[in-house]
Amino acid sequence: MSETQLVGTPVREIDTPALLIDLGAMERNLACMAERLAGKDLKLRAHAKTHKSPLLARKQIALGAVGVCCQKVSEAEVMVAGGVEDILISSEVVSPAKLRRLVALSHHANIMVVVDDPRGAELLSEAANEGGVEIGVLVDVDVGQGRCGVPPGVPAAEVGKFAESLPNIHLLGIQAYEGKAQHVEGFEARKSVYGDAIGRIQETLEEFSRAGLSTEVRSGGGTGSWRWDVEGAVLSELQAGSYLFMDAHYCSVGGESGPVYDDFEPSLFVLTTVVSTPASDRVVVDGGHKSLSSDSGWPVCVELEGSVYSAGGDEHGIVTVSASGLRPDLGETLLFQPSHCDTTINLHDNYYGVRGGLKEGFLETVWPVAARGMVR
Amino acid sequence: MSETQLVGTPVREIDTPALLIDLGAMERNLACMAERLAGKDLKLRAHAKTHKSPLLARKQIALGAVGVCCQKVSEAEVMVAGGVEDILISSEVVSPAKLRRLVALSHHANIMVVVDDPRGAELLSEAANEGGVEIGVLVDVDVGQGRCGVPPGVPAAEVGKFAESLPNIHLLGIQAYEGKAQHVEGFEARKSVYGDAIGRIQETLEEFSRAGLSTEVRSGGGTGSWRWDVEGAVLSELQAGSYLFMDAHYCSVGGESGPVYDDFEPSLFVLTTVVSTPASDRVVVDGGHKSLSSDSGWPVCVELEGSVYSAGGDEHGIVTVSASGLRPDLGETLLFQPSHCDTTINLHDNYYGVRGGLKEGFLETVWPVAARGMVR
Repeated sequence: MSETQLVGTPVREIDTPALLIDLGAMERNLACMAERLAGKDLKLRAHAKTHKSPLLARKQIALGAVGVCCQKVSEAEVMVAGGVEDILISSEVVSPAKLRRLVALSHHANIMVVVDDPRGAELLSEAANEGGVEIGVLVDVDVGQGRCGVPPGVPAAEVGKFAESLPNIHLLGIQAYEGKAQHVEGFEARKSVYGDAIGRIQETLEEFSRAGLSTEVRSGGGTGSWRWDVEGAVLSELQAGSYLFMDAHYCSVGGESGPVYDDFEPSLFVLTTVVSTPASDRVVVDGGHKSLSSDSGWPVCVELEGSVYSAGGDEHGIVTVSASGLRPDLGETLLFQPSHCDTTINLHDNYYGVRGGLKEGFLETVWPVAARGMVR
Repeated sequence: MSETQLVGTPVREIDTPALLIDLGAMERNLACMAERLAGKDLKLRAHAKTHKSPLLARKQIALGAVGVCCQKVSEAEVMVAGGVEDILISSEVVSPAKLRRLVALSHHANIMVVVDDPRGAELLSEAANEGGVEIGVLVDVDVGQGRCGVPPGVPAAEVGKFAESLPNIHLLGIQAYEGKAQHVEGFEARKSVYGDAIGRIQETLEEFSRAGLSTEVRSGGGTGSWRWDVEGAVLSELQAGSYLFMDAHYCSVGGESGPVYDDFEPSLFVLTTVVSTPASDRVVVDGGHKSLSSDSGWPVCVELEGSVYSAGGDEHGIVTVSASGLRPDLGETLLFQPSHCDTTINLHDNYYGVRGGLKEGFLETVWPVAARGMVR
């Protein structure tokens, strides 16, 4: 029902709240990742849960990515429909309905999926057998995150051996994603935590080799660990997603001690309008919980120095303006950097791609967030 | 892309994550509110930002509601398209594009909107004049929330006088919503805070009367204050929305000291599946930030006594199982009560209405969350 935005519209006339991409910044991030991985054994398997857009996935693949990860089968369906041909489903799939869909999808693209449980491997094998297909699997190893996954080393290899013994599934290696380490503050602190994860990955790979299991695919890592994923030389696939947009959380957690994140730059913003100016130190904008996620903290106001955002309910943001700052007028626009790109993008139906700067630029393109809401 | 769910499917076979309505509980909430307001001067103007469903709005209207509130013009457009004929837009609208849409919408339904600024009133007047319509307005009064709104008393009446002087807008009264008080913990503490708000409303109404301004419409209150909105007898319209579903936050903030919320019962849940059982005290379900909002805390596991949910990223929930509790098996379903119904509903495309209980019942109906994502 939203009014269509005309290409060529000046950026500050785009109806708000609007999820903006600074296309130049995003393209530099795309190119930077391709450059950092050029000539390395580590290939990008971009995580599509971030952008939820087959169009952006294809841009990543055009620059060297081997494919994408999806968290959900329904997300993968959108990717395949949009021309993506190689997908790792990076979450365990155990429901009969979803297993049937996964198997069906494997007729149309190269699909791998993770398992962390003998029973899960059996369910997958049975579904693949029924569908008459062969599915590639990775053993999901818990290398520190404490979410899903088999413990590293021998237990992981045991699951691998069992999976390899089943019909219609083909063991290709491991997934080892350390999600907690991605967010440790400070360069050295994170390096140390992630070093432990690398040790667990190595231990697991040794056990796999000892058991004669494939370690061809070693998928993991992310935007918060990419430097050590390159240096560590244990993974074959890097599951980075956020590097494309660099949210406020990823921009901040490097701390002041080291240049963890100066390779990538913020390219994703939410444009809002000031709808109320009730006090000299406070304005209210038209973006709250339903436009800007808060699971990783408040979004950051990138235009009014010293001003601070806090949510004022579902559809309002309260911006406290510093004493020294200028208070914007009613109807003016204000730009925020999301605290968490993945969950903010999932609130929006479209990206508004802007060329020529976020103040003076113009709308170049509207891209659907095609897999928004695909939680199954 | 999600698989269609067949009516008649046993509740625990509905594909997950799924936003479930316990239809019996919801219908009791609908009836209870109608009963509580029967014969009172206070009429329900249900807040549609909660359910985002014209179908549910029409059920509320059939039981006596005068219409609905919407936070956004785009939300109102969906309500009008779905047969709702009386809408208060409870947020300030100042952008030219949205004002044009609001004016256009007023050809098809009775639309009121709030103003809290003389310039905002002028913009609305100009748009209504251009569109050749007359729009009803309420002065939005800040009676304690500290978000939008004019200070109570004389300042509010001044804005009212100014608005009344403008062409094509027609002052009908005030909006006075105290959002903070809705969430004060404990019966007596909340009653006291809300009592202050009622005092500010009365003061404002006196100033309006003194200035000869209409006080025909006095809209405000909510699920967290409805008892005092009934007793206070200052409002003419109650903007309750959450009463329909009663999220974990609204169920808990009454505290142990008083029965603030025993009139309404929880009717909204998210069904998930256990996709990993990695440790004896922990399972992982397939619902994270993208299925269950966390802006008002974690959702509550309603089935495993003593177990605690925490988000494990975008698509996973980590459930810590108490030592005494049974750990569910891989593939079993687990039910959660959302912490905040509005923001959780906005993550889903459909409601799954269940009849006959949440364990043994069956899918009776699938209803679209028609205004999901309508943030403009």
